[in-house]
Amino acid sequence: MFLETFRSEGLAHLSYLFGDGGEAAVVDPSRDIDRYLRAARAEDCRITHVFETHRNEDYLVGSREIARRTGATIHHGRGLDWKYGETAGDGDTFRVGPVEVRVLATPGHTDESLSFAIADTATGKDPIAVFTGDSLFIGSVGRTDFYPDRAREVAGLLFDSIHETLLPLGDGVILLPAHGAGSVCGGGMAPRDFSTLGYERRNNPMLQLDRDAFIRAKTTERHEQPPYFRRMEVRNLAGDAPPLDALTEPAPMTADRFAEAMEDGLVALDVRSPEAVAGAFVPGSVAIPLDMLATYAGWFVPDDPPLGLIAEKDDRGAVPEARLILARMGFERVAGYLAGGLDGWETSGRRYGRIPAVHVDELARRLEAKDPPVLLDVRTRDEVDEQALRDALHVPLRELIERLDEIPRDRPVVAFCGTGRRSLIAASLLKREGYEEVADALGSLSACVAAGCPLLAKEP
Amino acid sequence: MFLETFRSEGLAHLSYLFGDGGEAAVVDPSRDIDRYLRAARAEDCRITHVFETHRNEDYLVGSREIARRTGATIHHGRGLDWKYGETAGDGDTFRVGPVEVRVLATPGHTDESLSFAIADTATGKDPIAVFTGDSLFIGSVGRTDFYPDRAREVAGLLFDSIHETLLPLGDGVILLPAHGAGSVCGGGMAPRDFSTLGYERRNNPMLQLDRDAFIRAKTTERHEQPPYFRRMEVRNLAGDAPPLDALTEPAPMTADRFAEAMEDGLVALDVRSPEAVAGAFVPGSVAIPLDMLATYAGWFVPDDPPLGLIAEKDDRGAVPEARLILARMGFERVAGYLAGGLDGWETSGRRYGRIPAVHVDELARRLEAKDPPVLLDVRTRDEVDEQALRDALHVPLRELIERLDEIPRDRPVVAFCGTGRRSLIAASLLKREGYEEVADALGSLSACVAAGCPLLAKEP
Amino acid sequence: MFLETFRSEGLAHLSYLFGDGGEAAVVDPSRDIDRYLRAARAEDCRITHVFETHRNEDYLVGSREIARRTGATIHHGRGLDWKYGETAGDGDTFRVGPVEVRVLATPGHTDESLSFAIADTATGKDPIAVFTGDSLFIGSVGRTDFYPDRAREVAGLLFDSIHETLLPLGDGVILLPAHGAGSVCGGGMAPRDFSTLGYERRNNPMLQLDRDAFIRAKTTERHEQPPYFRRMEVRNLAGDAPPLDALTEPAPMTADRFAEAMEDGLVALDVRSPEAVAGAFVPGSVAIPLDMLATYAGWFVPDDPPLGLIAEKDDRGAVPEARLILARMGFERVAGYLAGGLDGWETSGRRYGRIPAVHVDELARRLEAKDPPVLLDVRTRDEVDEQALRDALHVPLRELIERLDEIPRDRPVVAFCGTGRRSLIAASLLKREGYEEVADALGSLSACVAAGCPLLAKEP
Amino acid sequence: MFLETFRSEGLAHLSYLFGDGGEAAVVDPSRDIDRYLRAARAEDCRITHVFETHRNEDYLVGSREIARRTGATIHHGRGLDWKYGETAGDGDTFRVGPVEVRVLATPGHTDESLSFAIADTATGKDPIAVFTGDSLFIGSVGRTDFYPDRAREVAGLLFDSIHETLLPLGDGVILLPAHGAGSVCGGGMAPRDFSTLGYERRNNPMLQLDRDAFIRAKTTERHEQPPYFRRMEVRNLAGDAPPLDALTEPAPMTADRFAEAMEDGLVALDVRSPEAVAGAFVPGSVAIPLDMLATYAGWFVPDDPPLGLIAEKDDRGAVPEARLILARMGFERVAGYLAGGLDGWETSGRRYGRIPAVHVDELARRLEAKDPPVLLDVRTRDEVDEQALRDALHVPLRELIERLDEIPRDRPVVAFCGTGRRSLIAASLLKREGYEEVADALGSLSACVAAGCPLLAKEP
Repeated sequence: MFLETFRSEGLAHLSYLFGDGGEAAVVDPSRDIDRYLRAARAEDCRITHVFETHRNEDYLVGSREIARRTGATIHHGRGLDWKYGETAGDGDTFRVGPVEVRVLATPGHTDESLSFAIADTATGKDPIAVFTGDSLFIGSVGRTDFYPDRAREVAGLLFDSIHETLLPLGDGVILLPAHGAGSVCGGGMAPRDFSTLGYERRNNPMLQLDRDAFIRAKTTERHEQPPYFRRMEVRNLAGDAPPLDALTEPAPMTADRFAEAMEDGLVALDVRSPEAVAGAFVPGSVAIPLDMLATYAGWFVPDDPPLGLIAEKDDRGAVPEARLILARMGFERVAGYLAGGLDGWETSGRRYGRIPAVHVDELARRLEAKDPPVLLDVRTRDEVDEQALRDALHVPLRELIERLDEIPRDRPVVAFCGTGRRSLIAASLLKREGYEEVADALGSLSACVAAGCPLLAKEP
Repeated sequence: MFLETFRSEGLAHLSYLFGDGGEAAVVDPSRDIDRYLRAARAEDCRITHVFETHRNEDYLVGSREIARRTGATIHHGRGLDWKYGETAGDGDTFRVGPVEVRVLATPGHTDESLSFAIADTATGKDPIAVFTGDSLFIGSVGRTDFYPDRAREVAGLLFDSIHETLLPLGDGVILLPAHGAGSVCGGGMAPRDFSTLGYERRNNPMLQLDRDAFIRAKTTERHEQPPYFRRMEVRNLAGDAPPLDALTEPAPMTADRFAEAMEDGLVALDVRSPEAVAGAFVPGSVAIPLDMLATYAGWFVPDDPPLGLIAEKDDRGAVPEARLILARMGFERVAGYLAGGLDGWETSGRRYGRIPAVHVDELARRLEAKDPPVLLDVRTRDEVDEQALRDALHVPLRELIERLDEIPRDRPVVAFCGTGRRSLIAASLLKREGYEEVADALGSLSACVAAGCPLLAKEP
Repeated sequence: MFLETFRSEGLAHLSYLFGDGGEAAVVDPSRDIDRYLRAARAEDCRITHVFETHRNEDYLVGSREIARRTGATIHHGRGLDWKYGETAGDGDTFRVGPVEVRVLATPGHTDESLSFAIADTATGKDPIAVFTGDSLFIGSVGRTDFYPDRAREVAGLLFDSIHETLLPLGDGVILLPAHGAGSVCGGGMAPRDFSTLGYERRNNPMLQLDRDAFIRAKTTERHEQPPYFRRMEVRNLAGDAPPLDALTEPAPMTADRFAEAMEDGLVALDVRSPEAVAGAFVPGSVAIPLDMLATYAGWFVPDDPPLGLIAEKDDRGAVPEARLILARMGFERVAGYLAGGLDGWETSGRRYGRIPAVHVDELARRLEAKDPPVLLDVRTRDEVDEQALRDALHVPLRELIERLDEIPRDRPVVAFCGTGRRSLIAASLLKREGYEEVADALGSLSACVAAGCPLLAKEP
Repeated sequence: MFLETFRSEGLAHLSYLFGDGGEAAVVDPSRDIDRYLRAARAEDCRITHVFETHRNEDYLVGSREIARRTGATIHHGRGLDWKYGETAGDGDTFRVGPVEVRVLATPGHTDESLSFAIADTATGKDPIAVFTGDSLFIGSVGRTDFYPDRAREVAGLLFDSIHETLLPLGDGVILLPAHGAGSVCGGGMAPRDFSTLGYERRNNPMLQLDRDAFIRAKTTERHEQPPYFRRMEVRNLAGDAPPLDALTEPAPMTADRFAEAMEDGLVALDVRSPEAVAGAFVPGSVAIPLDMLATYAGWFVPDDPPLGLIAEKDDRGAVPEARLILARMGFERVAGYLAGGLDGWETSGRRYGRIPAVHVDELARRLEAKDPPVLLDVRTRDEVDEQALRDALHVPLRELIERLDEIPRDRPVVAFCGTGRRSLIAASLLKREGYEEVADALGSLSACVAAGCPLLAKEP
C-alpha cells in the first residue's frame, strides 16, 4: 500500500493519494490534478474514488475533473445540495484495492464533515491512518466559526467528534489532516506534517482541555473569512471549475501595454519580495509577496477584473506559480505580466513609487522627534494582546481598507507588523489609496525583540 | 532573435518557435502544444502567429489550440476550404517583433504549400533562414504523389519552387524543413537536422538533377499513403482536434480485465521490443515496437475501436509516450494498458504466443533442408530491387493484410526484412491471422551482409 | 520539522533526512548522496549529522562523502574498528535544530545496532518517530543469523531490544526502518512503507510471539549471505567508497567492440525483461532483469572484471539505473553497454541464444510424454515446503552454480520458479555453463495456481 | 549527425557537442561537464575528442575532467606550455564517427587560436559548419588587445584569418562561435545565436571593412581585462580545475553566523535584483545582480576570501546558479548563504542599508536646485562618446575603486548608467566604501531617452 501527500503551498492545503493492487483514491484534490494522475500512473493504479472530507471553502476542488479523466466516483458528506458526486455517511465502507476505507461522521468544522479511516487488509484489520479533513490538525483543531448562531453547539460537536470518534481509533493511527501550518482554516498548527493520534492525544494543546474548556476556547477564538470563501463554497457545491488548461496563457506585456491595460481596469499585482517593492514599484499596483499570496489574495485581489502580474525580471517560475495559486483560489483571469519586470517599467521612463524601509531604532527616534509619523500597527488583535506597542494606531491588515478614515493623510505613516512583511502589503495599499509618505518598518516586532527597542509597551 | 526546434519523434516531424522582442511565432505545431507555450514563456514572448506550411497529412496540428490559449492568428495557404485561420499568399509579409516573415508560394508537394523566409531586421535585410515545409528537406525533397493525374506537372512545380524561389534566397540561408530523416513525407533525408541552402545546392542529390531528370525521378518514386492520411487531411481542414487534456487517462488493466475487453473489441497494441515480443506475447495483439509506432500505426491500427497498450512491466514512460504518438496521429481512444506487462498476463495462467528468432545461418540451412519454410521478405520494392533474396516470397509489409492469400498457411513462415524489426510486425500480424508456425529472422539482411550468407541473390 | 524518506529501489533500502531550523541529519545514507544535499538545500538546512544504525552489509554508505561535502559529523555504534566517524551509545543525545535525537542500543541484528528516537521539542518531549535500522521492520523483524554460534543469544537480544527498548516508546511513535519489502535484510516485510509502533505491536506477526517462540522462529529461519556482503562490511568499516562522480562513464560499445571485450574478460550483464532475454540474448551473458538486479547481482556478478551492460535499444534510463544499483553494491567497473541493444548484436551477424518460454500446460504435457525434460525448480526451500511440485529437481537459485553436477546435461531443462522470472536467471546461467536445451516456464507456479495444472504436488 | 549547443549564461559562452555513429566530440567545454556527458549518453555516443579553440581567459575549461571520465583526447593550439592534452595544427584532420574535423589555424584573437571545420561525410565533403572560437562571432569579431605591443599585427592576422581562411569555406557554412551576445570577449555581437558565413559576409559590420579600416577599427577599440582573466589563463594551461563535486556545499547561515563570518573576512555577495538591493541590503555587502554576475564578478569579487551569498528568501535556484557561475570563473569558495534572505537579517534586529531610487525627472530637478548631488555616470567611454550627460562626473564602473578620490564624499551621489543596473553596483560599492548618501537613478539613460529629460547633453 502506498500513500503520497501533496502540498499546495501557500494554502497549506494537504491532499493525498493512496492505494494498492491497481486501484487508488484521492482525498481532497486541488484543481491542478495532473499531479495525482501522474503519481497514480507511477504506481500503476487507476483512480477509482475521490473522497472529500467537507465542502472546502478556501480553494476550488478538482474532483469532477479527476472523475472526468478517470471515471472515478466522488463521495462527500450529506446535507448539502451537491450538484455532482455521491454522498456517504457514517459507517459506510469502500474498497480501494486491498485498502478498506471506513467513513466517520465528524461534524464540528462543518456539519457534513467526514473523516476516512483506512485499513490495510493485507496486514490487519486495524486502521493504520485517518484522513481528518479540517477536524483534527497536527497541534490544533479546525475552526468552528462558520455557524455563528450555533457557536457553542458546533464547538461541542467538534469535541465529541475528536474524543468519541477519532481518538478511539487508537494511538497508533497516523493522522492525515487537510491542512498544515500556515492555513487560514485553523490556527496554531505545528510546522510538522506527520503525527499520530497517540502523539496528538498527549501533545496537542487543544486535546488537553475538557469539553467545557474546549468550547470556551473555540468560541473565543478570532477568525476571519476572506470574501472569496463564499465564492469557493458556491463553486465547490456546483463543481464548476474548468480544467486548468482551458485558461488563457498569461502574456508578457511591455510597460506601454501594461500601463494602458491598467487604465482599462487591469489590476496590477506585484508578487516580488518586500525589499524589491520597497525599492521601486508600479504606481497603483497591489503588492503581495509570492509566499503570502495564498493568504492575502482572498482579501485584496478583486474577483472580477483581469490581473497583471509583476515579478522579478528573470522570472524563475514566479509567474506560473502565482498563476497557479490564484487559479486554485478561483482567480482565473491572469491576462499577463510585466515584461522585463520593474526594469521594463523603469527604462520606459514612467514614474515608480518607493516605500522607504525604516529600521526600528530610527523609527523610535522619529517617534520621539518633532512631527512624528503615525505608527500603524497592522498585526492581529491576538498579536497585539500579546505584545502591544506604545503610541501605535492599531488597524489589523484585513480591516485596513474599511478603516482608512482612521488613518490620517496629512502625516507620514510607518507601517509595522511582526516582521515587516504584512506591513509592506499595508504600505502598498495605502500608496494605492493616495497616501503620500508611507514607510515600512522592515524587521518590525522581531527586530525590536531581538535588538531591544523602546517601541514595546510595558508588560500589561 | 531566438529559434527553437521541436522534434516529434517517430513522425520525424519538425516544428519551430522563433521570435524576439516579446513576440513569437510557431511553424507547423503538433497538437501537444504545451512545449511551445513553455518555450515562449521562457523567452518572455507572447505567441502572436502560427504559420502552417501546408495542410499536414501525417499528424493533427495544434494551431487552433494555440490560438485559443494565446490569441495568435493562424495563417495557411490558399485554395482549400479551411474552417479556421486566415490565408496568406506569395509576397505577404508579417512582423514578429523585429523578425520579418515573408511568404513564398512553393507549390509542388501540395498546391497550397508555402515557405516562410525570415529576416532578422536587427542585423540586416537578408533572410537568415527559411521554413520550407515539405518542399525541400535536408538531403531530399518532398513527395509529389498526392495528385496522381498531375504527376509530371506537380513534380515540375516542385522543381521550380526549389530552383526559382528557394535557392535564390542565397547560399547562406539556413534550411528549416518540416521533417527530418525517418518521415513518411519524403525519402532519402539525411540523418542530420541542420543545413543551409548553399550546402543543399551542392550536396542534395535531388538538386543535382536538371528539370527533366528531376521530374523523371519524382514520377518514378514509390510512396505509400497509409489510410490515416485521409483522416488527418479532413481533420486539419476542420481544425477539430480537442485539447490533449480532454482525453481520458489510460488505466492499468489486470490480465482478466484486459482479456475481457479484448473480447469486447479492444485492440491490444504491443509496443515492446522485437525480442520481447518474440519471447512471449498476448495472443491476438498487434506488435509495433515503440520506435516504429509512428510509421506503422497508420497502417495497422484500426481507427475506431479502443486500444489497450502492452509495454514493459516497469513502464519507464512507454505508455505515455505511445499514447502521445497515437494522439498526434488521431488515435485518441487509448482505454488502458496491461498492468504488470507480460508478467501480469503470464502469471494469470493465460496462454501466450511466441515468435522464435531464427539466425540467418540457421535459416539458410532450413531452406536447404527437407520441408523448407516460406521465406517471407517484407521489405519494400525499392529495397528488393537493390538486393534480392533467393527463393523468397516478397510481400511488402504494407500490403501484407491484402495479400494474405498468397502466403501459404500449411508451411512454416520465416519473416525477413532489413534488420528483423519490420518482419517482427509482419510475424505478429500473421499470428493474429491464425498462422501457426511463424518465426522472425532477427538480424535479417544486415546480418546476411555482415556475416556473409547464401540467402542473397547474385548481383543482378 | 520535516522528514523525507529516500528509497533505494531494488535494495529496498530506506534512508532519511530530517531536520528543522536550518539543521538536518541523514540516517543510513547510500553513496548517491546528491539527493540528500539537494533535499537539505530545498529546506534551507545544513547537514550537521549522519547517523548510522549499524554497519550495513548490503550496500556502501555515503557517510564520509556527506561529511566531506558538508562538515557533518558521523555517528555509529560501538565495538567495531571504524576508520572514521564517532561512536555513540545508549542514552546519548544530539540536537539537530529543535529536534532531539536519543540513541538507543538495540542489539540483535548486529551487536552494535542502534536505534534513534527523535522528539520535536517545538511541540513536546515525547518521541514522534524512531529510526530502527534492521531491528524492527514493518510487518517483520531483522535477521539474526550473522553470529551463527550465538544464534539463540542474539535472537533473544533482538526480542529484548524490541520489547524492552522500542515498544515502550509508545504506540503513537512512527516507525522508520532501514528497509522495506523486498530487502534481503529480512523476510516477510509488508509492502507498505509507513507504520507506527502501536500498529506493529498489534499486527506484526513476529511481535505476537513470546520470547521463546520468537527465538525458536528466528533460529529456524533460513537466510543467505551473498558473497558481496563481506566486501560491504569491510568497506563500510573503512569508509572507502569514492565519490560516484569519480567513476568512469559507461561508454556505448559496438557489437564488435563488445564481443572483443568479452573475449578479454568483460562480463556481459543483460538487464532486459525475461521475455526479451527469452527472445534473443548474447551468448555468454548473465541475465538479471533490472528490477531484480539489486537482489541477485550480489550472487551472480563477479567482483573483479569489468562489466558490459545490455539493455533495450532505446535505453529509457536503464543503463544509468543499472549502473547506480551496481555502484551502490560496490560493483564499480561498468565499462560500457552494447550500443543499439540486441539489435546492434543481431545486425552484426553474430549468433544469439534463445530461451523458449514454456507454458505450464505444455510443460505438464511434455513431462507426461516420452523423453521428458528435467523440471528444475529454483525456488527457495521455504517456498517448496509450502507448495512442492511433482517430479521436480529442486535446486534453489542461489545454489545453482555450486550444484551444477546435479543437473543433467543430456536432457532438456525447463527452469521453474514462482512466476518465471528467477527461473529466467537460472536458464541464463545454465546457457552460460553450456547447457544446450534450456527453456523457461514463464508464469510458473502462479500460472499453475491461477489456471490449475497437474504439476502441483498433492497437499502434504 | 547531431549538434547540440550549450550556453553558459552570463558568460555568454557557447560550447558544443557533435557526433554520430557512436562517437562524439566537445568543443570548448565549461567545467560543469555533466551536461555534455548526459547529452552524449542520450545520443548513445562515447566522447572521443575535446577540441579547444584557444586558451580561454574568461572561464575554467572542463577538458581534463571530461578526459578523465571518458578517455577522450584533448586537442589545442601550438605555442603554449600546455600541461595536458595534445596540440594540433593547420591542416590536421580527425574523425568523430563519420564526421571529419579539419583544423584551421586562425590566429588573431590569440596566436594559438584554432578553428575547426566539420564535414558530414555521410552527405558530402563540403564543410557544413565551423567552430570559430573567438575569431569570428555573429555580428562581430574577436577582440585583439591581448598583445598590446603587436596591436596592428594581430588585428591584421585576424583579418586574414577571417578573409583568407574562414570565409573561403563557403557561404553555406554554419557559424559556431565560442560566444554570443553579452560576452566580454568581444563587443557588438548580435543577440541571435545562429548564422552562416554567407550571412556574416554580407551583414557583419566588421566584415564590410577593408584590411586597413579593419585594423584601424580594431586598434581603436576599448576593451578591459578583469583581473581574473590572468588566473583563468594560468589555470587553463595547467588544467587544474577540480571536479565541481569536490567543492563543499554552500550552507545556510543565520544572520548571527553570517555577521560573525563577515567580521572574519567573509565577503558578502548580494545577487538580488537592483530594486531589492535598493530597498534594503546588508551593510558591507557587494551587490551584483545575478544576471550581471558573470560580467562583474571578475572585477569586484576578491579571489581569496570565502564568499557568502545573499539571495531572495525563497531561493528559487539563485544560490546554486550563482555558485555555478562563480565556479566557472574560478571563485570556488562559496561558504554559504544568508538563511531567510534579507528577511533573516532584518528580523535579527541588525541595521540594513538603503539606496533610494531616483527618477530622472526628480534627478534633473535636484541638479537644478541648491546643493545639487554629484551625478556619477558609470557608463563606458564608448557610451559617453555616443551620448554624454550635462554636469556629470564620468567614472566608468570598472575604474570606480581606483578613482574613488575623484568622487566627493561630502555631497550626495546619484549613480547613473544606461538603465540603472550598473549604477546600482556602483552605488553598492560606494556604500561599502563609506559614502553616506548614495542614490541610484533607476531607468537612467533609457528613461531619459524614453521620457525626454534635460539631463542629456546637446548633440555633439
